[in-house]
Amino acid sequence: MQYEPIFLKPMQNHEVLSDLLSNIVTDLVVLPELALSGYVFQNQEEVDSVAESIPDGEIFKDFQALSAKKDMSIVYGFAERALDNYYNSAALINPDGSYAIYRKIQLFYREKLFFSPGDRPYFVSTAKSEVKIGMMICFDWQFPEAARSLALQGAQIITHPSNLVLPWCQEAMRTRSLENHVFSITSNRIGTEQNGNFSHTFTGQSQILGTKGEILIRMNDTETGIYTVEIDAALANDKSITEFNNAFQDRRPDMYKLI
Amino acid sequence: MQYEPIFLKPMQNHEVLSDLLSNIVTDLVVLPELALSGYVFQNQEEVDSVAESIPDGEIFKDFQALSAKKDMSIVYGFAERALDNYYNSAALINPDGSYAIYRKIQLFYREKLFFSPGDRPYFVSTAKSEVKIGMMICFDWQFPEAARSLALQGAQIITHPSNLVLPWCQEAMRTRSLENHVFSITSNRIGTEQNGNFSHTFTGQSQILGTKGEILIRMNDTETGIYTVEIDAALANDKSITEFNNAFQDRRPDMYKLI
Repeated sequence: MQYEPIFLKPMQNHEVLSDLLSNIVTDLVVLPELALSGYVFQNQEEVDSVAESIPDGEIFKDFQALSAKKDMSIVYGFAERALDNYYNSAALINPDGSYAIYRKIQLFYREKLFFSPGDRPYFVSTAKSEVKIGMMICFDWQFPEAARSLALQGAQIITHPSNLVLPWCQEAMRTRSLENHVFSITSNRIGTEQNGNFSHTFTGQSQILGTKGEILIRMNDTETGIYTVEIDAALANDKSITEFNNAFQDRRPDMYKLI
Repeated sequence: MQYEPIFLKPMQNHEVLSDLLSNIVTDLVVLPELALSGYVFQNQEEVDSVAESIPDGEIFKDFQALSAKKDMSIVYGFAERALDNYYNSAALINPDGSYAIYRKIQLFYREKLFFSPGDRPYFVSTAKSEVKIGMMICFDWQFPEAARSLALQGAQIITHPSNLVLPWCQEAMRTRSLENHVFSITSNRIGTEQNGNFSHTFTGQSQILGTKGEILIRMNDTETGIYTVEIDAALANDKSITEFNNAFQDRRPDMYKLI
């Protein structure tokens, strides 16, 4: 899913997103990072004005209802309030009412001024149809340890809500899928957002990649909408490369120095 | 450097390589994996017939003399004999007589029948002009831990002798350079080599990449020769991404589960 949110207008954005989601039939949909609020915050008050607590947030609860009604798992990025902290988080919401929250571990640029870094290690969750889902957010792509950690824990699909501004991620994610033999879904936003002296242009090109890094769908950098593909998530369980090679079993951690 | 060796003819290959190397002026040159012997072994006797021990191997000693004469560091792949074991190794030879041997850690396909896996962790060496060199060989590219390990130990240039047969490495190496902010030099062979029932076609496209994964040189899949570029290896010491972000300092190992 790709679109341009209106900055600091979560209710308006929620309405647009709900309309888009109401018109599709799928098992899993992935929305961008900070999909309800926009990105270019200038101060903590702006973040506070759009942040939600879990599980009491109004939009969170509405997405739970939508997930149940449409019988689909939803992954979306949002600003999370938890006690005195704010996190750049992603929620996985399932039709059966279960959910999981990932708090972005590697924050980008001025996010560090407004958000706390994630305080829980990468983990894998179960989505509709028992599919194993890993969540990472935007700049996490830069660190091979993120996708590796999710895949080693059994993720079949890496869901990757994003607000990308650098030119490298979409191609680098092909390596992330290939090196781990996992599907990946990068949902990016579009548009230019300005707030005071700060401005970012987001690169779109949201994509779904197969387990060899092949592009199943890639949107352009201006279009709004949702594309779906049908995949067999179980293909990600096969880590074999040749009859003698396996992407995971051939790893030799005792030979690595990863301080 | 890219060329097609003649299978099981190390002395002939050595002559071709020496001619090529005699005609260039550079600080560092990288040759392919198993550059003296060819690749498609059918049995241990073939490997034994081309293997050299270090530091007594005739070709090794000749490359040492060439390195001193030309005042350049040389990295090349060769079959190493060490007591009763054979390794798919790479040698770094320096003009001052110093050298280092890397034994391939992740073996590909039927290499596992003829070679022992490397028994020493990834390490970094010093080449001419105090440049910090990491060595990995061919299929090691598949494992993000290989380049990561070298870069975290201070490698400025990853030298990567290869005999590539799969279609993915050259693009994936762009991610390896980018995620670690290091230069990389992949020297691949060309040609089709058949031995009995086994045959491989090698993909050429040897390349030198900058610290953002940008292509400084990429050869095609048929040409023989040596291309050189001038780089400032110290650029690889700069791991900053934005004023708030650093490719290494932003890593959060306590959040990764890398079993």
